[in-house]
Amino acid sequence: MNRSSKFVPYLILAVSLLAAKAGAQASQKVSAEELERYAKRVEAALKDQKIPGATVGFIHDDFVWVKAFGFSDLENEVPTRQDSAYRYASVQKSMTAVAILQLVEKGLIDLDAEVQRYVPLYPRKKYPITIRELLGHLSGTPHYVNRDVEQHFKDHKDTMQAIAVFSNFDLVAEPGTKFVYSSYGYNLLGAVIESVSGEPYSRYMEEHVWKPAGMASTRMDDPLDLIPHRVRGYQLKDGALKNSEFIDVSSRFAAGGTRGTVPDLLKFMDALNHGKLLSPQSLRLMYTPMHTRDGKISGFPNTAGYAMGWNVIHRKIGEVYTNDGGQQETRTFILSVPEKHFVMALAINLEADVYDEILFPLFELVMHEKLVDPDPRKQ
Amino acid sequence: MNRSSKFVPYLILAVSLLAAKAGAQASQKVSAEELERYAKRVEAALKDQKIPGATVGFIHDDFVWVKAFGFSDLENEVPTRQDSAYRYASVQKSMTAVAILQLVEKGLIDLDAEVQRYVPLYPRKKYPITIRELLGHLSGTPHYVNRDVEQHFKDHKDTMQAIAVFSNFDLVAEPGTKFVYSSYGYNLLGAVIESVSGEPYSRYMEEHVWKPAGMASTRMDDPLDLIPHRVRGYQLKDGALKNSEFIDVSSRFAAGGTRGTVPDLLKFMDALNHGKLLSPQSLRLMYTPMHTRDGKISGFPNTAGYAMGWNVIHRKIGEVYTNDGGQQETRTFILSVPEKHFVMALAINLEADVYDEILFPLFELVMHEKLVDPDPRKQ
Amino acid sequence: MNRSSKFVPYLILAVSLLAAKAGAQASQKVSAEELERYAKRVEAALKDQKIPGATVGFIHDDFVWVKAFGFSDLENEVPTRQDSAYRYASVQKSMTAVAILQLVEKGLIDLDAEVQRYVPLYPRKKYPITIRELLGHLSGTPHYVNRDVEQHFKDHKDTMQAIAVFSNFDLVAEPGTKFVYSSYGYNLLGAVIESVSGEPYSRYMEEHVWKPAGMASTRMDDPLDLIPHRVRGYQLKDGALKNSEFIDVSSRFAAGGTRGTVPDLLKFMDALNHGKLLSPQSLRLMYTPMHTRDGKISGFPNTAGYAMGWNVIHRKIGEVYTNDGGQQETRTFILSVPEKHFVMALAINLEADVYDEILFPLFELVMHEKLVDPDPRKQ
Amino acid sequence: MNRSSKFVPYLILAVSLLAAKAGAQASQKVSAEELERYAKRVEAALKDQKIPGATVGFIHDDFVWVKAFGFSDLENEVPTRQDSAYRYASVQKSMTAVAILQLVEKGLIDLDAEVQRYVPLYPRKKYPITIRELLGHLSGTPHYVNRDVEQHFKDHKDTMQAIAVFSNFDLVAEPGTKFVYSSYGYNLLGAVIESVSGEPYSRYMEEHVWKPAGMASTRMDDPLDLIPHRVRGYQLKDGALKNSEFIDVSSRFAAGGTRGTVPDLLKFMDALNHGKLLSPQSLRLMYTPMHTRDGKISGFPNTAGYAMGWNVIHRKIGEVYTNDGGQQETRTFILSVPEKHFVMALAINLEADVYDEILFPLFELVMHEKLVDPDPRKQ
Repeated sequence: MNRSSKFVPYLILAVSLLAAKAGAQASQKVSAEELERYAKRVEAALKDQKIPGATVGFIHDDFVWVKAFGFSDLENEVPTRQDSAYRYASVQKSMTAVAILQLVEKGLIDLDAEVQRYVPLYPRKKYPITIRELLGHLSGTPHYVNRDVEQHFKDHKDTMQAIAVFSNFDLVAEPGTKFVYSSYGYNLLGAVIESVSGEPYSRYMEEHVWKPAGMASTRMDDPLDLIPHRVRGYQLKDGALKNSEFIDVSSRFAAGGTRGTVPDLLKFMDALNHGKLLSPQSLRLMYTPMHTRDGKISGFPNTAGYAMGWNVIHRKIGEVYTNDGGQQETRTFILSVPEKHFVMALAINLEADVYDEILFPLFELVMHEKLVDPDPRKQ
Repeated sequence: MNRSSKFVPYLILAVSLLAAKAGAQASQKVSAEELERYAKRVEAALKDQKIPGATVGFIHDDFVWVKAFGFSDLENEVPTRQDSAYRYASVQKSMTAVAILQLVEKGLIDLDAEVQRYVPLYPRKKYPITIRELLGHLSGTPHYVNRDVEQHFKDHKDTMQAIAVFSNFDLVAEPGTKFVYSSYGYNLLGAVIESVSGEPYSRYMEEHVWKPAGMASTRMDDPLDLIPHRVRGYQLKDGALKNSEFIDVSSRFAAGGTRGTVPDLLKFMDALNHGKLLSPQSLRLMYTPMHTRDGKISGFPNTAGYAMGWNVIHRKIGEVYTNDGGQQETRTFILSVPEKHFVMALAINLEADVYDEILFPLFELVMHEKLVDPDPRKQ
Repeated sequence: MNRSSKFVPYLILAVSLLAAKAGAQASQKVSAEELERYAKRVEAALKDQKIPGATVGFIHDDFVWVKAFGFSDLENEVPTRQDSAYRYASVQKSMTAVAILQLVEKGLIDLDAEVQRYVPLYPRKKYPITIRELLGHLSGTPHYVNRDVEQHFKDHKDTMQAIAVFSNFDLVAEPGTKFVYSSYGYNLLGAVIESVSGEPYSRYMEEHVWKPAGMASTRMDDPLDLIPHRVRGYQLKDGALKNSEFIDVSSRFAAGGTRGTVPDLLKFMDALNHGKLLSPQSLRLMYTPMHTRDGKISGFPNTAGYAMGWNVIHRKIGEVYTNDGGQQETRTFILSVPEKHFVMALAINLEADVYDEILFPLFELVMHEKLVDPDPRKQ
Repeated sequence: MNRSSKFVPYLILAVSLLAAKAGAQASQKVSAEELERYAKRVEAALKDQKIPGATVGFIHDDFVWVKAFGFSDLENEVPTRQDSAYRYASVQKSMTAVAILQLVEKGLIDLDAEVQRYVPLYPRKKYPITIRELLGHLSGTPHYVNRDVEQHFKDHKDTMQAIAVFSNFDLVAEPGTKFVYSSYGYNLLGAVIESVSGEPYSRYMEEHVWKPAGMASTRMDDPLDLIPHRVRGYQLKDGALKNSEFIDVSSRFAAGGTRGTVPDLLKFMDALNHGKLLSPQSLRLMYTPMHTRDGKISGFPNTAGYAMGWNVIHRKIGEVYTNDGGQQETRTFILSVPEKHFVMALAINLEADVYDEILFPLFELVMHEKLVDPDPRKQ
């Protein structure tokens, strides 16, 4: 599979994302009318699915479109904005993978080194586990073990405390043998970033990922900080909307402890594809699906595999890289088709996987291909 | 002290509180200009003290005035409203005292019975403690013992669980001998209300206090419920405004687990003084300072004593009954001068005791007397 | 089923249990040699199953036999004794059932009353639940919900706190429809005993069950109390003996929070069958299997049903009533055949259900019938 | 102060400590009668102070004496032994200091490096803190902050979790300015040992301290492990002996998480003074009192200062180095007078500082000088 030529970063045009007025001008390829019809579908989806608020957008070549729907606060009837600040949840993992690969580029991390080389206090398990395995969810490190406790932390945790949550857990699979999606594995990568860089994760990300990509509104989701346009999140209980349970996501820092805007998510992917964050070689590595030892592609069903922080989907128009996040208060989705200079992101403030009607039509509208086959058994 | 004649409930006029337009008309005794000048002082106080938002109001005879200041949500720049919903905190204790006295009126509670008669699982302590002692903070039941834990509960607690928080604590004083302010004592009274009425505290309050008083916006402060105009709370950290720490106040139900509006607080006191909630005899009892066994008045310094859920202050214009609340997100204050048909309430969304400039001038403006002597040593 | 005549209490002979020298004299029906051979089998069972220590005994008519095996403390090589003090675990439920029926006899409890009549703070569930349903594990109250937490409490809990552990749990079945074994249901019965008697559970049991039955060594298992001959408990981890995890069983008071000796367990059943604790009518009720609403016998598989605190097993020699307990540090078993004036008890200090070779041969030796059919499918 | 010549390791004679029969033979300097009289005093002290059990011993030149008193288990009446296994508590800190200095000798640790060089995830504080400051309790790291929680952990913690207990605590003093005794500081040193050696603390200690010193019975105090002759611990409550509260000391690993025997403590000090664990230079450094920045000796009152893991006391017979430990279940004391080839150790299984009558007479008997001046104001 020789895809390297596809990854020569395309030139980024002088686009000020937030200045771009949604719907004010049309792309060459998408008309204002089409976007308006799409917006109507999204409004209907919000109503159908009881989604309080959503923001969705894309960049296609030099065309930027972002639109907000519904409410970011139902109790106070605050409308959602383009720059409403949602919890990112697990789409943060893509940024963590980028940071690790930056440190590999600098020679500070060896992808095949044992994680204890960088985090010596992390207890050795039955088998050694490597950085590469952690990136691909192939280390056998478990995901949440006691969900009733671990997914509901309400106190603030530093990195030491976040790792201590799972440091005594046994592996659930021999490393390299099985795809075991694990937020803990990505938190361990966050600890590696801190150990190797000598900086807190947040400062490293700020300096080496968020600022270089122009992501001015992305930050750790500290419940005490005054975060402009912080979105309130909701859940459905017996069919009725309720406020989300309060949790403090500091314990999920590198795996999902951030907050920011849909435009920032677009900028992240755009910067990545323009070569602002990683070299072409690293980019290629990051986007390449990993294998289990038996030679099989590793990853979620109905995908072409999990790379490093990204799912890969084969489409006619090119390789599609996606990631999604789910957490109290939020659902998020990011998608990148580097060959088509297309990136797309959405966030909703409802804890329910009900954004298909926001996601699929927009992809199809701009890419002229379905994101998933109608019959999932064919995928 | 023969004050009984003063408590013949005055006639309540057909005042729809929320319909009353703030500042739209003047009282006979307070001019619109005076209220405007006062409002300017409040605005200055908010700026000086970094108070994000406040609502303050009063009823004097048939004149109702309520005004909102600042923001109820800084992150989303939501202005505060007359009907913004603040945490009540400890002013709830006054309502709990009313409920207990209602049940005494019905013969269901004996004020001098041991609390275990009504809450048999509550472990006996070194000395027996009575309902009356609990009402007057004279039972020796401690307040928060391990504040780092007990003032920061983030999970939901039912009554059994709320009582279990402190059921194993020893008394800190022999009952009857010392004023020991205790939220736990009032929670125990909440358990008594439930045991005796066979209803959850919230339903009892709804049916017997809030509805009869016309308090349509008062409720338990459940973090999951969508509460219209719920105010966001703030704290000062190193001089900077931060969001308040999240806590779930369900564990403080009868001592401070409710949320509502300033107009509702006014309605509560007004209904009380109009005899809608208690008989004149019960009202008199509730407003009478209690004594320790040695015959001394019991209560906070610089007051004329603590009655049942109320502080008493002697003023020339008459007896003043007050209560105040402080909790994460809020500070509240209620004040009643039954003889003058005057009630007053305020709430701010900052965790700081900085509302003097809101409280004192308004009292003085309407009552033409200072609420406290200039030199506190004279009190 | 007219079995009432069988329950006329048989005369108890002047037997001082602890004075009875094990194996020193033979029963009319069991010879000293048979008991010696049985003891050899027990010794072999201890070795085979890595059971550190065990005490086993029976009363048959006026013959009392109790024998200790192995060690009560491996670290300090302390031999087990006849009066070694083991955790009772769930066999305590039989005593709780007795206490409830005593209070029914006194007219203080109505078996068909809603539990909230006696424990008003216990939150009402989707359906009302009665005392009778609690006795038969028919209330739908769940057993441990989050075992990792609830079975590992290490702190001391009073009754309020023990009930608060599960007060917010939903029912897992509609009351009356399903046998759902629940330690929480029996703890709720413990709370009923306290509410109705006005005494702590331990004092009620002391005065009304343990003392009347001559059980001088039975008590709440307080980890701080110096308890003579307290047995240390063990578990098997990867085939190796380890100390048991420390837990404080105070939260399981009426369902399994006690400690005592095998002779005391024998005395309990003997006193019961001699009519010292309950009237014949109550005894009959306690020993009668309960039904679900659809008319089916309720209880564990391979039994003739669950009565009130007892499993019932049909044998040719008569009805056999059993109960068993399992907890960190211990396994216990009690068995009573009132018609044969036979009671039997055993305790081991290993957390493993490996006492069949202690239980079955002794029953067969004395009763001349197998306790369970060789083919369990026939039962 | 030129004391270097004093530290040339003296020859150890072929003494098998445990084979030495207590009191069976006299030292040249102490007669069997004197030791017998001393033993009577100890027995009286146990009775006076309600100490259940004690073991005490010393090595003087080639004379070894160890004697056990009272009971190691009151519930089962197990007599204490010479090789009874007590919790070491804080005397473990002396061994941790030795391990750090061994790693300094190997060039793996720089005493003046910032601790984050070795434990990168430990959050930076307001000021940098060094290994040397940690050794001398001069880092400003606090001791237990919330004792009700931190001194009562009942769960097992690995090193990451043990550090996470205090990783977010602020310094309580600027490093170098104040003696602040801190178990957390020594746990951080334990983490340094693990990071630098790549081994768990227990394995490092086993290989580099315990085995070289011949300490065959010293180990981490795991509550699940079967530890021969494990002593049960006691506390006094209202004057009555009670079992100690159960705690798991794994969270205190390098600061006090071990268990072993009095003979092993003697062997540790003896090996140290014979140069088996550290070079003379390191030994000298370890035994030298440290200073605060203002040039004053740092340490506890009534001492000549705190060195690295040892208190220093000036006596006529030479410098005396001591350390003591206190924890649930235990009190321990170790003492070394290298110039006199004298080491001494004791342990009791009571949580009370009541061992003066065991400690002082033995020191005086063998050293012919009081350990402390009669009038403490003269010290």
